[in-house]
Amino acid sequence: MNVLIIGGVACGPKAAARIHRLQPDTRITLIEKGELLSYAGCGIPYYISGQIRDIKELMKTNAGILRDSHYFQNFKGVTVRNLTVATRIDPQRKEVEIFDIGTMDRERLSYDKLVIATGGQPIQPDIPGRDLKGVYTLHNLTNAKKLREQMQQGAKRAVIIGGGAIGIEIAEAFTHNDLETHLVEAKDQVMAKALDREMCAMVTEYLNIDEVNLHLNSRVVGFEGDEEGHLRRVLLEEGSIEAEIAIIAIGTRPNAQLAAEAGLAIGASGAIQVNEHLQTSDPDIYAGGDCVENLHRITGKPVYIPMGDTANKHGRVIANHLCGYAQGSRFPGVLGTGIYKYGDLSIGHSGLTERQARADGYACDAILYPGLDKPEFCATARRIDMKLIFEQSSRRLLGVQLVGEGDVSKRLDVLATAMSLDATLDQLSNLDLGYAPPYSPALDNVISAANISLNKLDGISHAVSPVQLWKSIQAGEDLLVVDVRTQREFAAERMDLPQLRSIPLSRLLGALESIPRDKPVITLCKVGLRGYEACQLLRGKGFANAFYLEGGLAMWSHPKTREPL
Amino acid sequence: MNVLIIGGVACGPKAAARIHRLQPDTRITLIEKGELLSYAGCGIPYYISGQIRDIKELMKTNAGILRDSHYFQNFKGVTVRNLTVATRIDPQRKEVEIFDIGTMDRERLSYDKLVIATGGQPIQPDIPGRDLKGVYTLHNLTNAKKLREQMQQGAKRAVIIGGGAIGIEIAEAFTHNDLETHLVEAKDQVMAKALDREMCAMVTEYLNIDEVNLHLNSRVVGFEGDEEGHLRRVLLEEGSIEAEIAIIAIGTRPNAQLAAEAGLAIGASGAIQVNEHLQTSDPDIYAGGDCVENLHRITGKPVYIPMGDTANKHGRVIANHLCGYAQGSRFPGVLGTGIYKYGDLSIGHSGLTERQARADGYACDAILYPGLDKPEFCATARRIDMKLIFEQSSRRLLGVQLVGEGDVSKRLDVLATAMSLDATLDQLSNLDLGYAPPYSPALDNVISAANISLNKLDGISHAVSPVQLWKSIQAGEDLLVVDVRTQREFAAERMDLPQLRSIPLSRLLGALESIPRDKPVITLCKVGLRGYEACQLLRGKGFANAFYLEGGLAMWSHPKTREPL
Repeated sequence: MNVLIIGGVACGPKAAARIHRLQPDTRITLIEKGELLSYAGCGIPYYISGQIRDIKELMKTNAGILRDSHYFQNFKGVTVRNLTVATRIDPQRKEVEIFDIGTMDRERLSYDKLVIATGGQPIQPDIPGRDLKGVYTLHNLTNAKKLREQMQQGAKRAVIIGGGAIGIEIAEAFTHNDLETHLVEAKDQVMAKALDREMCAMVTEYLNIDEVNLHLNSRVVGFEGDEEGHLRRVLLEEGSIEAEIAIIAIGTRPNAQLAAEAGLAIGASGAIQVNEHLQTSDPDIYAGGDCVENLHRITGKPVYIPMGDTANKHGRVIANHLCGYAQGSRFPGVLGTGIYKYGDLSIGHSGLTERQARADGYACDAILYPGLDKPEFCATARRIDMKLIFEQSSRRLLGVQLVGEGDVSKRLDVLATAMSLDATLDQLSNLDLGYAPPYSPALDNVISAANISLNKLDGISHAVSPVQLWKSIQAGEDLLVVDVRTQREFAAERMDLPQLRSIPLSRLLGALESIPRDKPVITLCKVGLRGYEACQLLRGKGFANAFYLEGGLAMWSHPKTREPL
Repeated sequence: MNVLIIGGVACGPKAAARIHRLQPDTRITLIEKGELLSYAGCGIPYYISGQIRDIKELMKTNAGILRDSHYFQNFKGVTVRNLTVATRIDPQRKEVEIFDIGTMDRERLSYDKLVIATGGQPIQPDIPGRDLKGVYTLHNLTNAKKLREQMQQGAKRAVIIGGGAIGIEIAEAFTHNDLETHLVEAKDQVMAKALDREMCAMVTEYLNIDEVNLHLNSRVVGFEGDEEGHLRRVLLEEGSIEAEIAIIAIGTRPNAQLAAEAGLAIGASGAIQVNEHLQTSDPDIYAGGDCVENLHRITGKPVYIPMGDTANKHGRVIANHLCGYAQGSRFPGVLGTGIYKYGDLSIGHSGLTERQARADGYACDAILYPGLDKPEFCATARRIDMKLIFEQSSRRLLGVQLVGEGDVSKRLDVLATAMSLDATLDQLSNLDLGYAPPYSPALDNVISAANISLNKLDGISHAVSPVQLWKSIQAGEDLLVVDVRTQREFAAERMDLPQLRSIPLSRLLGALESIPRDKPVITLCKVGLRGYEACQLLRGKGFANAFYLEGGLAMWSHPKTREPL
């Protein structure tokens, strides 16, 4: 069998290596337009920050071997044609036309099976001046290297265009190198695809601490350079920013043109349509990685969410199906799970945001839970703010968001595993996780969050979110807010509200007569538990309008939740 | 309603607090024989090590409030009778006889519903001298405090009896305080309930580095003291150890006597039998925590696995069922998940060991996978050794073991979640986990381990484990071992075997004629991947006796795997 693979970064090499292992006699040819193969693109921000010294580190195997064309030839039994562009696919004749950048030769290669792994590329906004030196997209190692060199040569001011996950990672790389950093985002918050507004507040705080200049609701309209073509100024709709570096990070689009020209089906997202075996509309042509659509595991609809780990999984599934292995030949779709580091902060998300879920018409609810990731008595305990979004009818998670200095990564992966396996909140509540004080509280944050969700879902608890409370206050609603923490805690820190009263939980029963029964009473504490207990007590005494503030003072104190969403 | 709860450590207070929240008008009385309530028993090793300064830290809520009887009375609406022993249950009259240790009064309390949460206690071997001062079990804070005081007063030599998880945690606390530490274990390895022999090797190495004196296959037969009754010497079957401190940590047994005397059904383990709602054989009497049996989620059989997190979950399920909430009133059982810290090492396990699975008659197989927890280019990347045990017919995990300096905790919880949700290896292979270089490799260790398992299960790969290879060598089998790493790697470190040859993978195809076809050929590399590729290549060329060494040199180099198991 003769297999042709177009694309040498993640899905392509993975498919090639596994086909070679499954069927060592298969003739495999890999075509790559760049010089370099199989690199860890997700490591680019760490190279830019200087944490990774040598860009070759991103191209090595765990045994320290450079994954160049020699490596693939020798170790993987794959013929590599790098610096070669596939210019046309002819599905009828089962041929691919290629163009060798070095020799300028054109050639036609035939195939029995073809794998398209052409990846994606950064979306390039049509802005005047974007060809100036100093304006970058970060889609390959060559660009990353140029940027790093410019930083080392003394560039001091940088503008990042796009406040998504990559923008945030780059912002950290820049502040880490003491660059004056600006982040320009068209929406009214950063990371809007991953986080709902209130979960984004801690990220904004950290950006502020690092003196990243946030330009929300802003658009870049042009780049200005000097006579030598070097960037000097980034023009916004209002005002401008002096800078030598600008990074465009507003998203990725699929490289699907080759497939489209060959008549293969293209999805609404603009990416190549594939079935569960990752076959295109021509069953002899597979496609995987950043050039295809995936089924979303929650909505069941096709989505374009390009991810390096997905591309690797695609490579394996393609190889299995191509070689006739039924087991492992189905790709079940994606949740869009992502995790990002900004300084000490970890930011994780999976599935739908509440905003997306409501827009998609789900009858859903959500909870906020700020908790420590280990018992209070552990010196290493750190906070994690968690949001779970769940569907009322199915009792299943629709999405999760986690932000904090604590071990976000573990909880994210547990929740993503649970979502992949269609777990109900009831099942989450009794997971048998590993407990010891250096690793988690006796009831892990995931289990506590599931329990809080169940209380809300089953009408046991009666909560308002910080956003709901703020809206009520803004609307001038007549309500009472009762802080049930101890007097000492109250004296140290409290909300700045005229509607606020302090009644410690231990005295609440004796103070019932002083609490009005004809208007909403909102109880609150540090994180939510005592507020919830106070609310239950009030409800038990006939206060039908009692609610507790979800996330307590911990999540109220984010400055951004004090603004209407 | 009138609810009586016997036991105030974990399950009891949890049930009390939730019943109070669900039905604030319920009369709840909690009986506790000790002075202290609701403490974090799992924090005791960290108090002993000195990492937690004040023992009260183990009794505080996250809001920093001490969980004493005052707290429960005021905040949780629970009447607490501490320093009070329940001496008899009369299920017919629905009464409990109690004895107040302070006043010496006896009294009978009636109940509508009773919750037994009497916990467990350390198994006390019948060894002469075990009443000497300096001989401890660590089942409560009072004992822990005495031990800590003795350490602060200058005790310098300690013997731990029992090499299970608690023994290991205590060993760390002792070495952390520069005590000369001996660990006496009756079996031929430490942590035998949690780890198979080869997975235990790294733990043994760490104990050796810390100069913990391991006495395997050893039993303590007596304790000798001085005239004042202070421990001076621990007597083994062979020899003795000078010491001022001895800790007995050979296991826990349930406090089920009260229940047994009341005629409630007791399981084969000696613990109280309960149904999925945690009702005993008398439906008005619930039991939970360390005094009951649980269903094992893998075998479906009752087991006695006392755990603090399980006790907390029991408390919630009991409260839900007792208050008539159908949702959340079922406890699905346990996997026996555990995680332990020894210095920089984390040790995690869940489900069955291979030893247990085979003894239980499962048709199973297992894989070993030593991998880095992050990409090689990350300075924070650390190793995790993983063992997965899976059933051939169901393609499901039976058990997992993880040991290493890397992020064991995350992978353990993901695997435990997957096992709780009955995931197949195929489902594990396509989990959508959070990937970014500071958190994991592009394909997380869990996914790689699932893929390695699938290759073995589906007959794609042909592996021998280090133990199998060692047994073959010991049996004098005629075989060839081919190290396919680079010459540089081979020069730096290699196996010490006469059967060993070096043929780098890149030269293997050219060296086929020099490899015998009439005997087993075992290929190996650093961790397994290149060994596997070499084996596939050989098999493709007709070497039907080719196998690769699972875990490569990384797991072979554990000294213990070189011994017959």
